[in-house]
Amino acid sequence: MKSFRLESDSFGELQVSSNMYYGAQSARSLINFPIGIETMPKPLIRALAIVKHSAAKVNMDFGVLDADIATAIMEASSEVMEGKLYEHFPLSIWQTGSGTQSNMNTNEVISNRAIEILGGVIGSKDPVHPNDHCNMGQSSNDVFPTAMHIAAVEEITHKLLPSLKHMYVELDKKSKSFNHIVKIGRTHTQDATPITLGQEFSGYTAQVANSIRRVEAILPALYQLAQGGTAVGTGINSIKGFDVAFATQVAKTTKIAFITAENKFEALAAHDAIVEASGALNTTAVSIMKIANDIRFLASGPRCGIGEISLAENEPGSSIMPGKVNPTQSEALTMISAQVMGNHTTISVAGSNGHFELNVFKPVMIYNLLQSIRLLSDGCKSFTDRCIVGITANEERIAKLRDESLMLVTALNPYIGYDNATKIAKKAHKDGSTLLEAALSLELLTEEEFKEWVVPQNMISPKEL
Amino acid sequence: MKSFRLESDSFGELQVSSNMYYGAQSARSLINFPIGIETMPKPLIRALAIVKHSAAKVNMDFGVLDADIATAIMEASSEVMEGKLYEHFPLSIWQTGSGTQSNMNTNEVISNRAIEILGGVIGSKDPVHPNDHCNMGQSSNDVFPTAMHIAAVEEITHKLLPSLKHMYVELDKKSKSFNHIVKIGRTHTQDATPITLGQEFSGYTAQVANSIRRVEAILPALYQLAQGGTAVGTGINSIKGFDVAFATQVAKTTKIAFITAENKFEALAAHDAIVEASGALNTTAVSIMKIANDIRFLASGPRCGIGEISLAENEPGSSIMPGKVNPTQSEALTMISAQVMGNHTTISVAGSNGHFELNVFKPVMIYNLLQSIRLLSDGCKSFTDRCIVGITANEERIAKLRDESLMLVTALNPYIGYDNATKIAKKAHKDGSTLLEAALSLELLTEEEFKEWVVPQNMISPKEL
Amino acid sequence: MKSFRLESDSFGELQVSSNMYYGAQSARSLINFPIGIETMPKPLIRALAIVKHSAAKVNMDFGVLDADIATAIMEASSEVMEGKLYEHFPLSIWQTGSGTQSNMNTNEVISNRAIEILGGVIGSKDPVHPNDHCNMGQSSNDVFPTAMHIAAVEEITHKLLPSLKHMYVELDKKSKSFNHIVKIGRTHTQDATPITLGQEFSGYTAQVANSIRRVEAILPALYQLAQGGTAVGTGINSIKGFDVAFATQVAKTTKIAFITAENKFEALAAHDAIVEASGALNTTAVSIMKIANDIRFLASGPRCGIGEISLAENEPGSSIMPGKVNPTQSEALTMISAQVMGNHTTISVAGSNGHFELNVFKPVMIYNLLQSIRLLSDGCKSFTDRCIVGITANEERIAKLRDESLMLVTALNPYIGYDNATKIAKKAHKDGSTLLEAALSLELLTEEEFKEWVVPQNMISPKEL
Amino acid sequence: MKSFRLESDSFGELQVSSNMYYGAQSARSLINFPIGIETMPKPLIRALAIVKHSAAKVNMDFGVLDADIATAIMEASSEVMEGKLYEHFPLSIWQTGSGTQSNMNTNEVISNRAIEILGGVIGSKDPVHPNDHCNMGQSSNDVFPTAMHIAAVEEITHKLLPSLKHMYVELDKKSKSFNHIVKIGRTHTQDATPITLGQEFSGYTAQVANSIRRVEAILPALYQLAQGGTAVGTGINSIKGFDVAFATQVAKTTKIAFITAENKFEALAAHDAIVEASGALNTTAVSIMKIANDIRFLASGPRCGIGEISLAENEPGSSIMPGKVNPTQSEALTMISAQVMGNHTTISVAGSNGHFELNVFKPVMIYNLLQSIRLLSDGCKSFTDRCIVGITANEERIAKLRDESLMLVTALNPYIGYDNATKIAKKAHKDGSTLLEAALSLELLTEEEFKEWVVPQNMISPKEL
Repeated sequence: MKSFRLESDSFGELQVSSNMYYGAQSARSLINFPIGIETMPKPLIRALAIVKHSAAKVNMDFGVLDADIATAIMEASSEVMEGKLYEHFPLSIWQTGSGTQSNMNTNEVISNRAIEILGGVIGSKDPVHPNDHCNMGQSSNDVFPTAMHIAAVEEITHKLLPSLKHMYVELDKKSKSFNHIVKIGRTHTQDATPITLGQEFSGYTAQVANSIRRVEAILPALYQLAQGGTAVGTGINSIKGFDVAFATQVAKTTKIAFITAENKFEALAAHDAIVEASGALNTTAVSIMKIANDIRFLASGPRCGIGEISLAENEPGSSIMPGKVNPTQSEALTMISAQVMGNHTTISVAGSNGHFELNVFKPVMIYNLLQSIRLLSDGCKSFTDRCIVGITANEERIAKLRDESLMLVTALNPYIGYDNATKIAKKAHKDGSTLLEAALSLELLTEEEFKEWVVPQNMISPKEL
Repeated sequence: MKSFRLESDSFGELQVSSNMYYGAQSARSLINFPIGIETMPKPLIRALAIVKHSAAKVNMDFGVLDADIATAIMEASSEVMEGKLYEHFPLSIWQTGSGTQSNMNTNEVISNRAIEILGGVIGSKDPVHPNDHCNMGQSSNDVFPTAMHIAAVEEITHKLLPSLKHMYVELDKKSKSFNHIVKIGRTHTQDATPITLGQEFSGYTAQVANSIRRVEAILPALYQLAQGGTAVGTGINSIKGFDVAFATQVAKTTKIAFITAENKFEALAAHDAIVEASGALNTTAVSIMKIANDIRFLASGPRCGIGEISLAENEPGSSIMPGKVNPTQSEALTMISAQVMGNHTTISVAGSNGHFELNVFKPVMIYNLLQSIRLLSDGCKSFTDRCIVGITANEERIAKLRDESLMLVTALNPYIGYDNATKIAKKAHKDGSTLLEAALSLELLTEEEFKEWVVPQNMISPKEL
Repeated sequence: MKSFRLESDSFGELQVSSNMYYGAQSARSLINFPIGIETMPKPLIRALAIVKHSAAKVNMDFGVLDADIATAIMEASSEVMEGKLYEHFPLSIWQTGSGTQSNMNTNEVISNRAIEILGGVIGSKDPVHPNDHCNMGQSSNDVFPTAMHIAAVEEITHKLLPSLKHMYVELDKKSKSFNHIVKIGRTHTQDATPITLGQEFSGYTAQVANSIRRVEAILPALYQLAQGGTAVGTGINSIKGFDVAFATQVAKTTKIAFITAENKFEALAAHDAIVEASGALNTTAVSIMKIANDIRFLASGPRCGIGEISLAENEPGSSIMPGKVNPTQSEALTMISAQVMGNHTTISVAGSNGHFELNVFKPVMIYNLLQSIRLLSDGCKSFTDRCIVGITANEERIAKLRDESLMLVTALNPYIGYDNATKIAKKAHKDGSTLLEAALSLELLTEEEFKEWVVPQNMISPKEL
Repeated sequence: MKSFRLESDSFGELQVSSNMYYGAQSARSLINFPIGIETMPKPLIRALAIVKHSAAKVNMDFGVLDADIATAIMEASSEVMEGKLYEHFPLSIWQTGSGTQSNMNTNEVISNRAIEILGGVIGSKDPVHPNDHCNMGQSSNDVFPTAMHIAAVEEITHKLLPSLKHMYVELDKKSKSFNHIVKIGRTHTQDATPITLGQEFSGYTAQVANSIRRVEAILPALYQLAQGGTAVGTGINSIKGFDVAFATQVAKTTKIAFITAENKFEALAAHDAIVEASGALNTTAVSIMKIANDIRFLASGPRCGIGEISLAENEPGSSIMPGKVNPTQSEALTMISAQVMGNHTTISVAGSNGHFELNVFKPVMIYNLLQSIRLLSDGCKSFTDRCIVGITANEERIAKLRDESLMLVTALNPYIGYDNATKIAKKAHKDGSTLLEAALSLELLTEEEFKEWVVPQNMISPKEL
């Protein structure tokens, strides 16, 4: 049998399950927003708790919050930060656009847990009040965007950047180990001049290096915290200096260089920094989609495709075709790319719709941003560990394709001119012959000249002057 | 203490938790795709079970599947269809792009449960084999897209359309009840000629009516089921006539007019019908964003905005501003619109990336489509019940704004011409006077004429010839 | 030396080049919106002229517009409709969001040309006034959306649908001519079971058939014309019945089934029908991207790719690689797809931002929609004529790949089971041997059995019961 | 009568209009790509000419190109750079995805003009050959992406950044001039606590400052030039050191810090830097949409909206409503935002579809990027000059709204608590009374206390400790 207690807010009393720390406003939100299955992500709940922890500390230091209460709030906040009370945060993403209800959810859980720590009666709001103490000097309008930034930065710092760096390292290893393998290049999906497999992979490595740079470049804007702006950015009902002290405290707790936002009006009313961050993730998604696509096409086959590389076989690929193995890590990663690209549209639309002193698309923005970060982090790590590291080069196949290619004719440009070279290529293509055969047949050069000039290994770099 | 059993696939043995019905391929997928937190949505799992149920029935009827086995598969499938075994479907969206692993998850759960029903040993694949029996005459490549269509259609039919129709009915009621209230119209966000509040709401009603039409229009393409195409669309290893019989069986089970797809190659290789469906949802999202925005702006205030209508007060709006009430249902709904618009980008990108005989962005496509359907369904229902039905008109405020407006001057065009009417409006605007005062001051007409001609109630329809 | 005349509007006088028919409001718009290089597209200018033509006719028939004036307006409108005066429509897309200035541009050009026809002085507004006569009973707010629908429908009817139907016919021809060619199928970009080249192309044909259906399905919503709603949808200053008579007149002029919009408030305030139309174009773009991609990959090579088909050689492919030929029509078409997908985002964002009685993103919406229609029309036509019709099958290459494939092993499932078939495939893959060699080495069947069972030509359809 | 000359390429001879400098490959492209009306933008043609100029210079300095020829090429290139020969560049965007044909268009125009300068016969390829001399050491595959970067950087540097800085300066002036005006804030579109109009505008200023930072941050990646990679990134047929010398020469010509790309494989195969740049433009678009929206809503009215500010009246706003003035600059700018957001989708889709050694969506990417840059540049400049600078505050209206607002009650929290303050606000709202009346009626404080505590001017900053 379920048991309940009564909690109240300015709209009246509500029953709350006895084993839940949250109070009336959370319960009311659950009733008013029976929408979807998406709840506030863990990193955001952690970040909201970091806000409460830091605010309590600063308020205590400023002498406006009783030390006993502050300490209990900080202890309760720490538990939330550690993920211990996540089941007490059941609210939907699809709530008020300011995230007010999740701020109150946090205030309610932490105040009730703090009351418990201090030996009080849960639900009594005594001695710890969700608004007067947990929310002291704060407004949902600065708390929630502050938590958005903290959550995004923590996830980027601790998950995404390590994952991308791991991907970079392993791609770079592959690139170096493949540097001696001269293969045919492909432009327009058509045969082109030679390239080494290592050079090809170095392009991917460069892409990932740039992704790392791009993601790192969005951090400074995200380091800026809205806290201290309170209701509309003016800081009403907060104490002068609270904003700076708060950011310093968050920096200390998280060991990340958070600072107070330069302009609090912008920090509440627009979330351009979130849109900017999503833009960097979108570029990363676009970039890795190219890499993942290339890898599955280079590995296409095993017998009827390009087949220049082989991938690790991770699982059965078909419920009907025996022995089939598929580039499933590429598939997961390209699906993730599509998701991140769409999330970016959502975030951009949401970001463009702020009005006056508040953008009220906050939950949907951070939900999508954190999903993008998480998926790119997990996806790139899995792709690296289960695909990249296992790639092997099929050198025999590579050599065969390369040596049959008509585009080796390009090496003849400096000797016989573009127009004559064209004649050779066209004749070989038409006859199904080798370039050498076509060249000799056209009497444009000798076999010795051909063998001296057409050397794939000499076609992979600029020539010395 | 956790206990395990050994399950095997063509890659070897794996430990599976004893209290789980799934087998080796599911377990292997969990290991290979530790990505994100998004798992296959309930309606899709139900749809996969409908596929297995229907296939078993048809295979039994065709005499190729033993009746005992078929009956057990159908019984197990029914349990999955009812949602009883959802915890046995833990696989990530971010798996192979064909959904093979979720097809195998379904085969494994249903075969093990069927084995249990028949008194066999779970994990033994005897007497019910996940591939040979549960997947008989099927391939993931036709099973998964079939399930995508079934899930989408069921959700649209049972959730989205009723929700939109409910919204239509309540908006229509409001429109009719507001029909006598003449208010100022607004174009370019600026004052314009009068309109009734009922007319204004009739625009919303028309929008929702069109959304219903649009969503209904996507059903025929979704009714087409890929089943019978097997591996590449040719139907290899299936029996002639299976496709038609299967679709008939699904139609019987679901009471929805499913049919077999006209072209199975298209049905596996492209998911244009999913993109098309998402397009209709996108239009719906765009459409309701306009409605939800209008309602919050018309209700803006209570004292410093437009304030022509009032919304029900559902919950406290601010953790810092006492007494504040916000248009939170509009906020949830507009966030949903942004999400659906972004999901549409994801689905479009995914849909454009099919290659050869198979599009391998299936899971991400159906994940986003089902999320869009669910959010629009829940969101429109909540918005209707908690916002639309409670809207009241502030008739006093409406009358005041209307009677002060300068755009009533438009009524004078037919009498004194556009240019003279312009002079009156400009003078009143400059002087802060009424139109009547300006008109008299310019000696362009008499007070009697003004009062006869400038009657807002006469400005809300065409004139009789 | 340039010569000028003076034109005036309610903001004062402005110099207008003597050889231009437009007047003060157009000239003012050119001054106020020096933005970009995109001007109103031809089909829209034609449609605006159709509106003026039809309105003059109806007003004359209703007896409210002098027949001489009406006739002159109709004559001038016809010239604009025929494209003769396009250089007199220089206004930017990036003007007022209602398109008011382009409506006035039309009124000014037509009134001045009508004045000229009637022997009057251009710029005198006598005997034909741009507002009082050309715009009689109209507002930009209903004129512009009416023109948007007319332009879109004309372009879809006369350009896009014929182009798609042409593409369908030629793809269907190819599909039928390729029906005997059994090739390897590919799923996950990897070798799969056989399929005929004709079956593969039938998937494309089905896609295009569906695109035609989708595009046709958007016409009914676009047939609905806003005209008669005037300023805010109420029809103020129009005559009862004007809306219906007007639509009938447009239908007569265009020979297209235009009707008056059911709800004029919706028709001005939202452009959901445009968003819906763009959605169908987006699906078409997504769909043809798949086709164009497949074709370039199937034609990849000539020696180091898949090379199953060859494309017509239309031009030199490289400024450096002699003899290179590229799938350039695929490239143009996939670039168009990307453009249409982005245009759809623009249109969706614009459509979602209507407020109150008017959506003021009209020019950007129709600019993008018309661009999408035009590009898909031209692109599909060019792709059909310069790529599809020239496709030839490389039957020798196709046979070689097919016969080497390991996935032919699938045919053995019914005889030796999935697990044994898997062993054969894996052994052949590991050893680089043929399936037959591996099968015999594993002693799972005889050579006779293999040759009877593994016949690609028998693997392209379901089996008889 | 038109006259022609014969030009030839490796596909044969073609007639070219005598008054055109372009040759056979351009003429062939015009025949093969009769698609749309979009041609290569001016800044790109200029950039292509910069490439040819710089390459000729370096090749001359390296001693591989005859000085006379080089000098003529440089002279001809200079003319193209200055825009003198733009009509000779008629090729469509919708051509080959490498831009090869526009590279050849450039080679043909410059070589023919150089031939003319040197007194030769146009079309003779003597003494200046389009491939051998103009394209010496180059490939379309490095020329075109190099030109993309040069064009984007020039437009950003010379147009977009100055425009944004201009906007920043004027917004900042407004912000400062409005700093004394205390008005009601609005969150959730509802009345909130006070803010100064200057503070509100400082948010916009901060947004634009951030946009400037974001746009500047994309330059370093765009400074990297692909030139020297030739066909596939290896630099085949170029001379060692050409890449560095070339970039130095471009930097000298443009006075912009271009450098050679770190990794040429990435520079040809992916255009992540273009996607990244578009991301910054997307963020800018999102950001200014918020600003433009706020300004039109704050200026809504003149009598039935918020009406806190007035905008300059630039033109007549309605063809039917006399005296109507609309926020048309906001409308142009928000339409531009929608366009840029959609262009970003196009660029992202295009960027994700590179394959192997070449992304073949180059023209569509640069077309959209340059359009976005141009529209933001022109739009922000026009918005600044024709809207921002003319904004005036309606101080009387502002004071009236502010003093009536219920949210001033927030100032009472520290004195009587959130719950009591709520009672006052709710009572005043219900009764339509002032806060003071409600407070006295509830006997929660004295009139003196109220007047001391509730002072809007004291509610716009944090309090001193």
